[in-house]
This record gives sequence, C-alpha cells and structure tokens, in this order.
Amino acid sequence: MDKLKQILKNITLPDNEIIVSTQARLDSLTKPLGSLGRLEELAKQIAGITGKEKPVLENKVIFTLAADHGVTAEGVSAYPKEVTAQMVYNFLNGGAGINVLASHVGSRVVIVDIGVASDLISNPKLIIRKVNYGTKNMAKGPAMTMDEASRAIETGVEIFEQEFIKGIDIIGTGEMGIGNTTSASAITAVFTEKPVEEVTGRGAGIDDEALRNKIKIIKKALSVNKPDASSPIDVLVKVGGFEIGGLAGIILAAASRKIPVVIDGFISGAAALIAFHIEPKVKPYLIASHCSVERGHKIILEHIGLKALLDLDLRLGEGTGGALAIGLAEVSIKILTQMATFKSANVSERKNL
Amino acid sequence: MDKLKQILKNITLPDNEIIVSTQARLDSLTKPLGSLGRLEELAKQIAGITGKEKPVLENKVIFTLAADHGVTAEGVSAYPKEVTAQMVYNFLNGGAGINVLASHVGSRVVIVDIGVASDLISNPKLIIRKVNYGTKNMAKGPAMTMDEASRAIETGVEIFEQEFIKGIDIIGTGEMGIGNTTSASAITAVFTEKPVEEVTGRGAGIDDEALRNKIKIIKKALSVNKPDASSPIDVLVKVGGFEIGGLAGIILAAASRKIPVVIDGFISGAAALIAFHIEPKVKPYLIASHCSVERGHKIILEHIGLKALLDLDLRLGEGTGGALAIGLAEVSIKILTQMATFKSANVSERKNL
Repeated sequence: MDKLKQILKNITLPDNEIIVSTQARLDSLTKPLGSLGRLEELAKQIAGITGKEKPVLENKVIFTLAADHGVTAEGVSAYPKEVTAQMVYNFLNGGAGINVLASHVGSRVVIVDIGVASDLISNPKLIIRKVNYGTKNMAKGPAMTMDEASRAIETGVEIFEQEFIKGIDIIGTGEMGIGNTTSASAITAVFTEKPVEEVTGRGAGIDDEALRNKIKIIKKALSVNKPDASSPIDVLVKVGGFEIGGLAGIILAAASRKIPVVIDGFISGAAALIAFHIEPKVKPYLIASHCSVERGHKIILEHIGLKALLDLDLRLGEGTGGALAIGLAEVSIKILTQMATFKSANVSERKNL
Repeated sequence: MDKLKQILKNITLPDNEIIVSTQARLDSLTKPLGSLGRLEELAKQIAGITGKEKPVLENKVIFTLAADHGVTAEGVSAYPKEVTAQMVYNFLNGGAGINVLASHVGSRVVIVDIGVASDLISNPKLIIRKVNYGTKNMAKGPAMTMDEASRAIETGVEIFEQEFIKGIDIIGTGEMGIGNTTSASAITAVFTEKPVEEVTGRGAGIDDEALRNKIKIIKKALSVNKPDASSPIDVLVKVGGFEIGGLAGIILAAASRKIPVVIDGFISGAAALIAFHIEPKVKPYLIASHCSVERGHKIILEHIGLKALLDLDLRLGEGTGGALAIGLAEVSIKILTQMATFKSANVSERKNL
C-alpha cells in the first residue's frame, strides 16, 4: 500500500485565498449578489480545488469501472449477471447512456474491466486490469481478500495516473456491475449505522419479494462477515466490489492531484464513502452530482456532508448523473471567467439596501 | 385581438400516439426501465409536443424581453431603474449571465426592448418594439391601458412569429426589468389567491425593511386596482408589465406552433400564469426549468401543476435557468435517439421480477 500512502500524504485542503478572491470576483459580476446560487458555489469550490483564479475545464474524464459480484448467485438483481460484460461492449460501441451523456458534455469515457467475471475481447478502448473474475458471494464469506482490496484501490490510483498524464481538468466516477447496489447498500449500512432496510432499494428494478430477499442477503452478509467500520479496507474486503475499490482509489488520486471529482449515484457514493473514511480531507474535492432514486444514496450524501446538485430521479449509474454535473461545473466556470463586471459594463451597482 | 384569437384556436393537445410510441422506444433502450427518470419524461413530453418520434432540437431561442416598471418610484427594488437599460446594453455586448449560459447550450438570444423607459441606441441585435416608456406606478392606478396590454401580448406573438420563420425547435423565456418581481408577486397573488406575504420575495436583494415596504405597495396596488382573476388581461392591465405580457404572447404563440416552451424563473412564471389563464391547453407545452429562490415561484408552479427540473438557488432571471433546462431537453432527446436498444446491442433483458 506504499502507493496509496504517498497519495494520501499529498491530499491537502483547498486554497482558501483563491476561494476568497473568487467570491470577490463573483460579486463584481453583472448580476444581483449570489443570484446564480449553487453555480457560484460550484465555481468557488473548483477554484479552491485547482488553486486557479480562472480554472480551465477542458479535459473531462469519466471513469466507468466494470466488475461482477458473486452475490448475484443469491438472486438480488433484476438482470442476469452476463449483462455486466454485455454492457461493457455496449460502452465500447458507444450505445449506452454514459456514451450519450458524456459526449453531450464533451467528456471522454475511460472504460475499465477491473473484475468482470468473463474474459472480454480486447479492444483499444478497453483497459483490462482485472483484480479477479468477479467477487465471491458475500453472503457466504468475504467478497475479496485483503490483497485484492488493496489491488483494487491501487489499480484505481494507477488508472487515474495514466490518464492524468494525458491531461485531466475534472473527473466523474461511473460503474457497471450487476449486483453492485447490494454491495453499495451493505457498505452504506456499515459506515452510517442505518438499518439495512433504510439503505436498500430496488436497484435495476426488482419487485417487493426480491427486495425482501435482497435485504435478507445483505443482513446475512453483514452478520457472516462483521465488517469493521473503523477499517475502510476491511469493509471493502467483506462486502465491497472491485469497481467500488477502484473508484475509491481514483477519488483519492484525483484529490491528491487537485482535480475536482464529480460523484455519480449510489455505487459511486459507496466508493466515496470508502475514500472519505480512508482520508476525510477528500471531502472538499467531491461534487455530488445528483440524488439517486436508490434510497441509500441520500443517506451517504448526508453522512459525508454533501448536497446533490441535481434531483432528476436518475438510477442508471455508469457515470450518467456525473456527466450532467460536469456540464454544470463547466458552466459555473464560464460564469466566473466570461461575465462582465459592473465596472466593465457600466452598470450601476445596488443601492444601499 | 384577432391575431391572439387565431393563435388560441391553433393550440391543440400534444400527440398521444407519439407519447405512447416514445415510451416504448425508451423502454427498449439499454438501461433499466425508467432509470433516466425525468430525462425520459422530458423526451416523451417533447416528442408529444412536436409530434415527432425523433425530435430535433437544433434551433434554440431564448427571448429576453426588457421593460421598466413605474412602481420602482415606490422604492421596491435594490437597484436603480436605470439598470434595465444598462443591462440591455450588457446583453448586446455579450457580458451578462444569459449570454454565457445561452452560448453554453448553443442557444441564440433574442433581445427585445418592449418598454424600457428610455430610448436605447439602435443595434442590429436589438429589437425595439416599445409598447410604452415603462408602465405606470401600479400603486396609484392601472400599470397600463387595455390597449397597451393587448399590444404587449400581440407584440410577443409577432416577435415569436418573426423568429419562427428563421427556424425554432425549442424556446426559453427570459426578462429584464428593475421592479418586475413586484409585478410578478401581484400577479401571483391574484391568480393563486395566496396572501401577498407568501408570494413576495427579496427580488435582486432588498433588506427586511424594504421587503415590508414592497409587500405594503403590492397590497396597495391590489386594493387600488382590484384586478379581476377571471380576466387575465385585466390582471395584466392592473398590475402587469410589458415584458410579462410579451412573454405571455410568446408562450401562446409557441404552443400554437407545437414548440416546447422552457419557462425560466419567477417573472417568466408570472407570464406563464397569464398565458395559462388565457388558455389552459398551453400547460403540456410548458417545461419548468428551475425553482427560483423567489418564494412566489413555487406557488406558481404548483398552481399550474408543473414540477421544476432544477433547484439550484437561482434568482437571476434573464432566461438563465431556462438555458440550463434547454440543455437538459437536448440531452433527453439524444438519449431517445442515440442510445442502443437491448436488441441492437445484444444485451440480455431483465428477468421476470
């Protein structure tokens, strides 16, 4: 874990001086004070993260990590597990939701097989960095070994670093893995200490009976494995997923490089939970894109102390909500850098009211 | 009002067959059923409005109408009334919030002087269609004459029709007018029958004392003028504004041409209220972009029966929130038209759950 230790040492707090000067700049622009609301907050956050008075958000990257989950053997998902691999091919062919949304905001998508259960046909657009062929069934024992958990996180770090060399100004997190809301719910229950019922939703669309079974399986996984909330790695080992560990690594690596991190939905949120519990200083680097229909997501955001930008009843994952918020981040920086000031536009300032 | 009567006759309900076939198309795309939430609803609405299975949203137009308000004499605003004209020049020079946001989503902005209190320097980008040099002070009598109210609406219709010839696929409403939240609050109080206190906010940023005065002035305007809620034109005459009447005309004209109408914030909402009370069939054509900080806006949306897409604490107006929602509309149509189907991508469909 030497690589991770080095990363963690490099995560520092955002630049407060820049935040203050950005506020002054925003207040000089031709609009009533604060009238662009959360877009102004976002501009300030990004200026603080990057340490730049005029940040540039040109290179946008969404990391979409795919992996399988042994717990699908327990009938927790509405889709057969083969769909994980099939959707990776769909990503590669440009036909998935994330392709459409990422392209709309001018973001590239980095597609990673970090643990799909089958061997995928090689493709120049696909990074194959399998930690293993899917996790084990967490209802019967740990989802992965300690070594696998470390490798999942460090693989995330390495993938980020490889892309960082090519240029990155902002990232979004995304994932694909049939069964991964089950893992995300378990992780959420451990860190937030909420009852499993309150953090478990219908995933891709299971009915009442399957939901009851899913809750039962998560409870079983927690009682069989007893994950230790004070050890994020232990939680990942016991009830995690390779894509979740990989995203935690990406989040930490991005923060260490002063890159804003847009968190997508529930599974990305579970990865953010792990990253946050490894290093709480990651928090100011996080932008919560949207609040998912998956009920556990709201609880994650409250636990970390984040407020979602969007609430559009999304529950697709892949990084789709994150893509929309990357668009908002870009517009917030355009406001900061392109609007006229009262002075430059010869507009009268407010009266003393 | 012959022109308006003709427009109203042409407002028909959206195409239900297209809505049904769009739902089927959305359900065939490679994502869990309904998992793109409100974006799917938006795609369906736009397909229904346009009557097209694959709508094109290429020509985006935001109409930003500027006018002055006589009621500013009562000290209801945080900014001097000269700012209306100054901001029009800012729009023309590209330095305002709406310029930045419209450009971000690829929308053109049509800037109209429909009643600024001073003569503006002519500019090829400025449409000058003054109904009068600002409204009269509604605290002392009607804001405008019946003839002015009709002309405000019909000017809106004509401006829309002129732009429609050049090509329009979707529109957003926007405005600029120091004092116009006072008018919008009065209109909202009349139609929704809510107490003035509940529909009046701080506009561009007045303090507690000025807010108390603003509420007092609105109450006075209502008691002096007694606007008749059953006559939308009477409400416009008594407590309206030229930009509000013009936007009501634009909204009605767009609906008659089967063009989706993205409503911006509180003042645009007041214009939508008038349009809706003139012809309730306009409702399915309306897309509520965001919920403004101005407290009356939420009450307008509830009254019409609309749910805002965004909640970003915006209160700038100009069409800025509408611009963001035009971006969401575009992405919703890209989802509909660019995503692969389960069949085309060889992805397994859901199990029977």
